[in-house]
Amino acid sequence: MGRWEPNARGRLEQAAMELYGERGYEQTTVTEIAARAGLTERTFFRHYADKREVLFGGSALLQELLVDTLAGAPATAAPIDAVAAALRAAAAVFDERREQSLRRQKIVSANAELRERELVKLASLSAALAESLRARGVPEPAASLAGEAGIAVFKVAFEGWIEETDGRPMGAYIEEGLDGLKAVMAGGRA
Amino acid sequence: MGRWEPNARGRLEQAAMELYGERGYEQTTVTEIAARAGLTERTFFRHYADKREVLFGGSALLQELLVDTLAGAPATAAPIDAVAAALRAAAAVFDERREQSLRRQKIVSANAELRERELVKLASLSAALAESLRARGVPEPAASLAGEAGIAVFKVAFEGWIEETDGRPMGAYIEEGLDGLKAVMAGGRA
Repeated sequence: MGRWEPNARGRLEQAAMELYGERGYEQTTVTEIAARAGLTERTFFRHYADKREVLFGGSALLQELLVDTLAGAPATAAPIDAVAAALRAAAAVFDERREQSLRRQKIVSANAELRERELVKLASLSAALAESLRARGVPEPAASLAGEAGIAVFKVAFEGWIEETDGRPMGAYIEEGLDGLKAVMAGGRA
Repeated sequence: MGRWEPNARGRLEQAAMELYGERGYEQTTVTEIAARAGLTERTFFRHYADKREVLFGGSALLQELLVDTLAGAPATAAPIDAVAAALRAAAAVFDERREQSLRRQKIVSANAELRERELVKLASLSAALAESLRARGVPEPAASLAGEAGIAVFKVAFEGWIEETDGRPMGAYIEEGLDGLKAVMAGGRA
């Protein structure tokens, strides 16, 4: 291990996001990211497996937040209400990081490989929610369906929020999505 | 163009599936597929862009079937009922091709790249359903939510059906999934 670098991970993330935005994800190398952050490549690889990981390092934290919040919901809560609590907790984090989320989304949506990776991440989140519901005694296929429904709401809410211009928080899009999916499944049109 | 080869596409698919099953997807080459089918590599590339395409060539047909069935639903049908009609039409096709579906699933699930490709395919199907619903006048976010809900039901139903041992058709899993998601969104537990 080299000497201690204060907030190396955050500096590397900041440098990577700047470079991905300036010259594109494909054109940026780990060498350049480390140089921009004033750190060595060796330090980069202590924090991230590769340059893609910088964009997806947060998804483990998001999954943890979703699963922990779901697990903390009252035992009597209906599955969809436990999932809704998890989505609301995630929305609060996204609202605190709107600028970073916007910048990241611009990079991910410009690259097919990154878009695919994002879909894999969403599928993992759905599976983690389902697993957490089964641990609460929710049977199949209800657990998997509730996990998929939660991620469907999250995906549509995120897309709305990332494009919004009226300052509505992500939480408002989550509520709209939950209500919207309830209405759709009850045979509504909107 | 070479001489006409009777059912070249079907023979190539059959050969590819046999080889993927026998020696694994990664280990199989286009040269071997063409040889097994008694055809030339040139003929292979007239029908498929690469060896992955053999496994995903059917997804354009599936998307067409889903979209056409949805578009053909009565104008007064609720969005979820139009989506349900599309899923039922798809289920009937899967039931006719159970052996091929099982064999294909075994190959896809054994390979990370193919599993990612499958997620991309499902996301495209969801987007196509949403677009078709918007064309029927369904507003956002209801159209996207109904598209996502349809694919969530399809995914969970397919997983159940592919693992079933009691002979229930895919259509039964689709009905169970639709009813299950309705119940979940209405606050039920199972």
